[in-house]
Amino acid sequence: MTLQPLAAALVHAPVVDRRGDLVTTAVTNLDLHDIARSARTFGLQRFYVVTPVAEQQRLVKRLLGHWVEGSGAAYNPKRRQALELIRVVSTFKKALADWREITAAEPLPVLTGASRDDGISFETCRGLMQKQPGLLVFGTGWGLAPEFFENGWHVLEPVRGVEDYNHLSVRAAAAIILDRLAGRSGNN
Amino acid sequence: MTLQPLAAALVHAPVVDRRGDLVTTAVTNLDLHDIARSARTFGLQRFYVVTPVAEQQRLVKRLLGHWVEGSGAAYNPKRRQALELIRVVSTFKKALADWREITAAEPLPVLTGASRDDGISFETCRGLMQKQPGLLVFGTGWGLAPEFFENGWHVLEPVRGVEDYNHLSVRAAAAIILDRLAGRSGNN
Repeated sequence: MTLQPLAAALVHAPVVDRRGDLVTTAVTNLDLHDIARSARTFGLQRFYVVTPVAEQQRLVKRLLGHWVEGSGAAYNPKRRQALELIRVVSTFKKALADWREITAAEPLPVLTGASRDDGISFETCRGLMQKQPGLLVFGTGWGLAPEFFENGWHVLEPVRGVEDYNHLSVRAAAAIILDRLAGRSGNN
Repeated sequence: MTLQPLAAALVHAPVVDRRGDLVTTAVTNLDLHDIARSARTFGLQRFYVVTPVAEQQRLVKRLLGHWVEGSGAAYNPKRRQALELIRVVSTFKKALADWREITAAEPLPVLTGASRDDGISFETCRGLMQKQPGLLVFGTGWGLAPEFFENGWHVLEPVRGVEDYNHLSVRAAAAIILDRLAGRSGNN
């Protein structure tokens, strides 16, 4: 059974810092390139970049201007195919609303994070995403703010390795999660 | 059956550029951080950074000095646990020799790349790595130079997504490959 349309969001606010304080992180070009390329590889239709900061939004649009419309698009068409999935929005709610409009269905937000023990398994998540358009939510900094977890949305189990260490970069975690959920053979 | 000890190498020379010409790429901090964190998560024992450029080697050693021995180690012990896997070497042969000495066995180099169709499957690769210490070889730039493929070493099949697009960053590809080969449950 195939997945419904799938999207991802990378949240720069509200997220927490190492002390758990609420912060807004800066958008980094490499996050956008890496996660867009992973998103494109695994067939996602949208990659939302969430930042309330106007100057950061302009930065993303400049990046897209170059790679999607400008000289970068001809120089590296594969990069264009990835980055054209990006939409910049000021809040996660706007990402959710846009994805709802595109899919004409109620999307299923699924929160990700390294420190939650109460999450659903990858298998369960995959099952849910066969019925409803998924929206995977990734946090920057030290993770999504507590308010995300107060909506009753599903939380995905962390990516675990061989021991207790699970301090992957968001770029690496997103790649693995997309592979496990949306890879051609499901979990391989 | 568990894997034998596993290591990875990130090669900055010789690699090819977009035209297929042989080049030496610059070491980037983020590659080292990301891949070291993925390597630590999946239980690798070494992460070799291959560059023949003395100034680049010094750059890596400065980075390690900060995060492994300096103030960064106390600030972020989890980062230290990842970056302490790194060894800087001038050639891939030196990485292979070091890994041979550490494991007291003949290591199995496995080359990675996005464009090879003649590779072994992840399942086959995992089987081989249960018998011999593996050394996964990742190229920067547009991939490993042809000479790597002239040694008779195994090549791993590319990470495929849902269509033909497979232009992952080396950081994302390494994360997925380590998860598929060395994740707790094998392929999940």
